[in-house]
Amino acid sequence: MGRLVLLLLLAFLMPGLAIPVPPALKALSNLHLSTSFTSRPSVVMKYSIHYIEQKIDHFGFKNDKTFNQRYLIADQHWRKEGGSILFYTGNEGDIIWFCNNTGFMWDVAEELKAMLVFAEHRYYGQSLPFGADSFRDSRHLNFLTSEQALADFAELIKHLKRTIPGAENQPVIALGGSYGGMLAAWFRMKYPHIVVGALAASAPIWQFEDIVPCGVFMKIVTTDFKRSGPNCSESIQSSWDAINRLTRNGTGMDWLSEALHLCTPLKNAQDVQHLKDWISETWVNLAMVDYPYESNFLQPLPAWPIKVVCQYLKNPNLSDKKLLQNIFQALNVYYNYSGQARCLNMSETSTSSLGSLGWSYQACTEIVMPFCTNGIDDMFEPQPWDLKTFSDECFKQWGVKPRPSWITSMYGGKNISSHTNIIFRNLRRTKMAA
Amino acid sequence: MGRLVLLLLLAFLMPGLAIPVPPALKALSNLHLSTSFTSRPSVVMKYSIHYIEQKIDHFGFKNDKTFNQRYLIADQHWRKEGGSILFYTGNEGDIIWFCNNTGFMWDVAEELKAMLVFAEHRYYGQSLPFGADSFRDSRHLNFLTSEQALADFAELIKHLKRTIPGAENQPVIALGGSYGGMLAAWFRMKYPHIVVGALAASAPIWQFEDIVPCGVFMKIVTTDFKRSGPNCSESIQSSWDAINRLTRNGTGMDWLSEALHLCTPLKNAQDVQHLKDWISETWVNLAMVDYPYESNFLQPLPAWPIKVVCQYLKNPNLSDKKLLQNIFQALNVYYNYSGQARCLNMSETSTSSLGSLGWSYQACTEIVMPFCTNGIDDMFEPQPWDLKTFSDECFKQWGVKPRPSWITSMYGGKNISSHTNIIFRNLRRTKMAA
Repeated sequence: MGRLVLLLLLAFLMPGLAIPVPPALKALSNLHLSTSFTSRPSVVMKYSIHYIEQKIDHFGFKNDKTFNQRYLIADQHWRKEGGSILFYTGNEGDIIWFCNNTGFMWDVAEELKAMLVFAEHRYYGQSLPFGADSFRDSRHLNFLTSEQALADFAELIKHLKRTIPGAENQPVIALGGSYGGMLAAWFRMKYPHIVVGALAASAPIWQFEDIVPCGVFMKIVTTDFKRSGPNCSESIQSSWDAINRLTRNGTGMDWLSEALHLCTPLKNAQDVQHLKDWISETWVNLAMVDYPYESNFLQPLPAWPIKVVCQYLKNPNLSDKKLLQNIFQALNVYYNYSGQARCLNMSETSTSSLGSLGWSYQACTEIVMPFCTNGIDDMFEPQPWDLKTFSDECFKQWGVKPRPSWITSMYGGKNISSHTNIIFRNLRRTKMAA
Repeated sequence: MGRLVLLLLLAFLMPGLAIPVPPALKALSNLHLSTSFTSRPSVVMKYSIHYIEQKIDHFGFKNDKTFNQRYLIADQHWRKEGGSILFYTGNEGDIIWFCNNTGFMWDVAEELKAMLVFAEHRYYGQSLPFGADSFRDSRHLNFLTSEQALADFAELIKHLKRTIPGAENQPVIALGGSYGGMLAAWFRMKYPHIVVGALAASAPIWQFEDIVPCGVFMKIVTTDFKRSGPNCSESIQSSWDAINRLTRNGTGMDWLSEALHLCTPLKNAQDVQHLKDWISETWVNLAMVDYPYESNFLQPLPAWPIKVVCQYLKNPNLSDKKLLQNIFQALNVYYNYSGQARCLNMSETSTSSLGSLGWSYQACTEIVMPFCTNGIDDMFEPQPWDLKTFSDECFKQWGVKPRPSWITSMYGGKNISSHTNIIFRNLRRTKMAA
């Protein structure tokens, strides 16, 4: 389930309410949105691309090699007098894609006379410590940790202050969303001498060990569907057994492959499991990008996409085949809003700008987030959190074992009251009046 | 000069003053003293010895191996109700030796109903990650860093709170002196969720990069000698040239070897340099243990040992031979207070409980402290701080290169105002009325 949490925005839909979204909150909700949807559609995103030489290993001295970390600078609104530096703590993907989709920073740049800096996270985009070999094995992946990434950020800011005249005494504020939001918060916690504060948007810093129940996240996703249309979550809930029944034999698999317009037909039980995982991930992704306006972040989507999806999922008591034909219509909203897809490709759920290899490794080492479903409080097939199985799979794939309690040792879990100037921003999005 | 700073206590002597030392201050000045010299000579030091399994590498996942870290617990005064935990952040040596010499913690244990925990620093004492191979090469030494040591401490405290009934909700306070004092401070900075505060005694957290001038430390050492007797520092200052003149030929070397009762006679210029380094280090060590009472920390010593040394060094204008005969008397105070030494051994300057190999590596990697002398503001031979030469020597000895700016990136240098509950205790020791 590691991939599920790439960009979790913990969005809540409240269709019964009709509270207008205040502009400030709206700007924040755009943290992952293309600026064409922000309150200032005219913002021009002009940046320059730079590279800094970083130690591959900040925490050991045997390996003294370096790599080039990429970062972007947008300084058209920056002023040496009274200005500031907004520092995006890049997360698990190509930094240019995040830069183009982080409207908030562009929106506030002029007002804050701010220099915008977008730092790419090591092992993503072009910032690969060992080039094409970076993901080859656990030896090459050994330097992919949040601690190394934060050290990169610290060295980068020191470098900027040393080399850009006028930057030295300006305050630096860290910003990020999702995993990048955790990094922004952790950066302020560990390097308060380098950043004066942090804005951590949708940063699930509690999604570790047993700080919150493992079912919470999927329950929230389910709530999004529950509130977006009558019987919507129930229809999804019914779909799993329908799939199981239909795929008991080859004929059923063939029928389902065609009904879902799959690019590669289902051939065996493993494919069926993959199908269900892929569909689950689709619902989760929809919850993460359920914006109140047309958008194009993970996929091109209409406004309130879950509401659109739920228009096809009003009756959970249909025959298996009818229900799954509706599921196809629903999937089609996510994968084919542009109308150009000729078939649905199970090997993709979102943009290729995200680094799925790197994230899979991080989820298998430090960023161990226990997720589970029980099929009662949520609309998914029951799947308990099983550290042993998870650990075995990680070892098989990467040759490493997860350390589920390390992040809490390192960053404090809930016990973070000693820290200051960190804004944790978690949206409970409210529906605007039509 | 790396070895010079093992236990720098920044002691000042002020013989002109006759201010009685307040008991609290006296207790603190004993941080590195055997308890037999503390205000409570009757304290019984009873502790139990334990081991905890620690990851060799907290910051990477390729190496999942573990080692046993040693720690000591003294809980005779500990109370579950209203008690606390005093945690000694072990520095570069055998933890039992530090435990026996850290009177302050034993002194306050009863009043604070405190459990005393003394944690051994990895790569020192018995806490060797690779046993006898730990110092073999840069690969085995790669996990000897302050960050790894702090992570050990964090995991140890979590373990104690989990396993000792009644410990879970008690406050933990970190304590340490010199390098251990830096660790105590850094521990509170980086893990405020684990320790509520820190007492950092004689912790030279500014002795990095150019935060303070590189000559400050040796100037302070010189001041200690200047204030302990007339012409004392001048005599030492004259002694270097006297040595240089005398050792121009073999006869002179023989004479000097005999005059100084050296166990191994001087044979060449390299030996002469070694002699001068060894004498310099002796003066520095004396400044670090210039306690107002008889003590036995680095060596058995009389009260105010520099004052005793200076009784032999009243005239800098003697002939070279006479001056060096006096230098011998002075060295003899440090190396032969017990009267049992048959010769002076240049390969030893202090207790073998300190781990000189490990410290040499740390000084060559993270703990890069620039020291220099100019022979004008101090009593030593001029020696500029030369990073290039230092770096080359480090690479020759350990196969690693120092990163002089890393500690400041990591821990903030002077810019630490975001942190709370850290007491930095630097003694300007005052002489008690005779």
